[in-house]
Amino acid sequence: MNNKEIPYKIYLEEKEMPASWYNVRADMKNKPAPLLNPATLQPMTAGDLEAVFCAELVRQELDDSTPYIEIPREILDFYKMYRPSPLVRAYCLEKKLDTPAKIYYKFEGNNTSGSHKLNSAIAQAYYAKQQGLKGVTTETGAGQWGTALSMACSYFDLDCKVFMVKVSYEQKPFRREVMRTYGASVTPSPSETTQVGRQILAEHPGTSGSLGCAISEAVEAATGTEGYRYVLGSVLNQVLLHQSVIGLEAKAALDKYGIVPDMIIGCAGGGSNLGGLISPFMGEKLRGERDYRIIAVEPASCPSFTRGRFAYDYCDTGRVCPLSKMYTLGSGFIPSANHAGGLRYHGMSSTLSQLYADGLMEARSVEQTAVFAAAEQFARVEGILPAPESAHAIRVAIDEAMKCKETGEEKTIVFGLTGTGYFDMVAYEKYNNGEMSDYIPTDAELEAGFAGLPKVEK
Amino acid sequence: MNNKEIPYKIYLEEKEMPASWYNVRADMKNKPAPLLNPATLQPMTAGDLEAVFCAELVRQELDDSTPYIEIPREILDFYKMYRPSPLVRAYCLEKKLDTPAKIYYKFEGNNTSGSHKLNSAIAQAYYAKQQGLKGVTTETGAGQWGTALSMACSYFDLDCKVFMVKVSYEQKPFRREVMRTYGASVTPSPSETTQVGRQILAEHPGTSGSLGCAISEAVEAATGTEGYRYVLGSVLNQVLLHQSVIGLEAKAALDKYGIVPDMIIGCAGGGSNLGGLISPFMGEKLRGERDYRIIAVEPASCPSFTRGRFAYDYCDTGRVCPLSKMYTLGSGFIPSANHAGGLRYHGMSSTLSQLYADGLMEARSVEQTAVFAAAEQFARVEGILPAPESAHAIRVAIDEAMKCKETGEEKTIVFGLTGTGYFDMVAYEKYNNGEMSDYIPTDAELEAGFAGLPKVEK
Repeated sequence: MNNKEIPYKIYLEEKEMPASWYNVRADMKNKPAPLLNPATLQPMTAGDLEAVFCAELVRQELDDSTPYIEIPREILDFYKMYRPSPLVRAYCLEKKLDTPAKIYYKFEGNNTSGSHKLNSAIAQAYYAKQQGLKGVTTETGAGQWGTALSMACSYFDLDCKVFMVKVSYEQKPFRREVMRTYGASVTPSPSETTQVGRQILAEHPGTSGSLGCAISEAVEAATGTEGYRYVLGSVLNQVLLHQSVIGLEAKAALDKYGIVPDMIIGCAGGGSNLGGLISPFMGEKLRGERDYRIIAVEPASCPSFTRGRFAYDYCDTGRVCPLSKMYTLGSGFIPSANHAGGLRYHGMSSTLSQLYADGLMEARSVEQTAVFAAAEQFARVEGILPAPESAHAIRVAIDEAMKCKETGEEKTIVFGLTGTGYFDMVAYEKYNNGEMSDYIPTDAELEAGFAGLPKVEK
Repeated sequence: MNNKEIPYKIYLEEKEMPASWYNVRADMKNKPAPLLNPATLQPMTAGDLEAVFCAELVRQELDDSTPYIEIPREILDFYKMYRPSPLVRAYCLEKKLDTPAKIYYKFEGNNTSGSHKLNSAIAQAYYAKQQGLKGVTTETGAGQWGTALSMACSYFDLDCKVFMVKVSYEQKPFRREVMRTYGASVTPSPSETTQVGRQILAEHPGTSGSLGCAISEAVEAATGTEGYRYVLGSVLNQVLLHQSVIGLEAKAALDKYGIVPDMIIGCAGGGSNLGGLISPFMGEKLRGERDYRIIAVEPASCPSFTRGRFAYDYCDTGRVCPLSKMYTLGSGFIPSANHAGGLRYHGMSSTLSQLYADGLMEARSVEQTAVFAAAEQFARVEGILPAPESAHAIRVAIDEAMKCKETGEEKTIVFGLTGTGYFDMVAYEKYNNGEMSDYIPTDAELEAGFAGLPKVEK
């Protein structure tokens, strides 16, 4: 540690900001397994993928050997509008907990999308624009990704079609209106605008939709329309690559003041935030330069890492997307109504799955009421109202800080605060009214999900 | 202009941040007129005021000669959690408008209260704590002030009782839940908890409340309870004093890069943001050191400056609060349903009113649909989703930048972006659906308001 006084918030100067993304796969001995074509169960080729995704993004998806990929000037310019995000020393939280631990959080919520999702949205929109496309399609559940993509498309003057799970469309009208303000068209899914949507509506009249159905509609809308491609906000390798900007900035800020963290903590749904946050630290670990504890936090109601299987599975409920080797609860697993919508995914990034399988990171599951208790405690002393997803990481950061209090150890904890909870007040209201409950799936429920796993030759 | 490259966002370092607030009244030749006791129509004494407000805040309210007032260490510590706020060069907006003007905005929305209100809330909570009080009471309409005060009270472990206009309590449940998450009690007004509330409910069963009624309830709850005082988020001199931190930071950031603005633009409801933003610039103007154009922007539906009278009037609809000499539409004037709730006030800060009367600033009124058009244009290129209040300033900043395009002048425009619009999506939805209309009060409606002005000897 050097002698510079550490400010509350560490901001990098423009010249200190990362100019390249870091591709952690380049340093992995065991590479993540390739995506499989759902029709043939053979590895997806670039050609297969380019029917759905932008060409440059396909290249990034398949590249597991180039460690650094330059960030195009146009994306750097956009990043400057809301980056660097601050690395904040949680002095007030430390004081409240009376812990000797030093707690830092990397806060990604200071942009209108309200989360880290914008880091990848702007990259994906840029490559779509470069390819001369007219627009992109996507699905959104909770709405953070849809909002981020709408903002990115607005910036590059691209059309943006969002299929929003019908129940969210109706229950989260504010998220929907943010997207519309940024010029996106938002269609409640299932809809009459696609073949698959019409089919589902005929079979299940009055259905309130699901993420799996919205993905199927978005993919159909992209592949069936000239000049359109489909984009996705998590799970994929390309997304983790773009999100590495979070970790690179965090590491640069820590290095600037000679701070070496003992542990890095992040919430994990599909893995976009966690994969980005930990990437440069994991890189050092993979290269044998330095060791860190790395902890993924997931909801007890959707415990892919802690109770899932490491196996090939479909990425979507509708089973039209490629198969990925990952920790999964089975594509037929329906997570219970957990308010952290961004963490309700049956699977996990294949990169993070491989790292976890190789013992390079830990995972922990936490229950919802304990998560909201941590969210409220954090909000009251640190000011920021966290998204429920982010609060999963807060919960474990507080737990670890309290262990330090017991042992007297002055550990340095860094966690990712992925976003703000302004559009999650219905969940906060339930918590405030004492009406929130926890749910942990039974072993039998999990077994039912595993029973649906596809049979794939290793 | 010096040669340093100007970054997108200018952040001050901790050592460059203001350590004192600036009291613009000290440099005014014509001081704002004193508040009058509503019972005697004589100037309010410190003793009169201390029955309602904290003692130190009363001292600040009455002090029109001390130019700099040191910011207590505890408040500076809190400011560090979310300040300095960035001064942003709106490069993308400039490019979109294709204007030679240089546009900067001081963004106050990067904290959970979503606005600049926190700057004064934390100061008022601090002085209440210093005085050994148990808690404070206040009213809130749109909810930004109530949220900010809840956060501040939570930080200092003070009780916070918010009377929220009943219609807002019911229609803005999310704002209410943010306040509850910070530990405030939120009571829909009128309520059965106060004498005045019970009286109003008896006279007007089923009323949805008004700001005037909520103020009366909050004042009664403060004066009738041991260890409580009432606090207010705008209009008062003390509030403008605390909000001077906005202008001081903005000026320090501009000075750091040798930038001299031609005009400063801010929205004006009660004047808390505008008064704070312009204070150091107005100070230079008052001392004859430099000239700036200073423009207050108000809604055409509630045009205190542009169509009001400069006269003594009650600060509240219920006429229980002191009288202030200000530009007013009459305390009986009911602003139409304009979505910028924070600008729906019949009067104006007495300090700003005196400056306007003395020809030291301009005022302009703008219509609602034009304001939302500016909000959307700004959001799409600059990323930030502005509060409707803030968008009034954006409207005029864009108008001035377009004038520069016509004349070819490279003017430097600074405007205040007071906050974010996450809780205003109902208004955005109306705009997105083409269902928003404008309203301009007729001369006859204004005359009716003026007819109710009290008769006060000059």
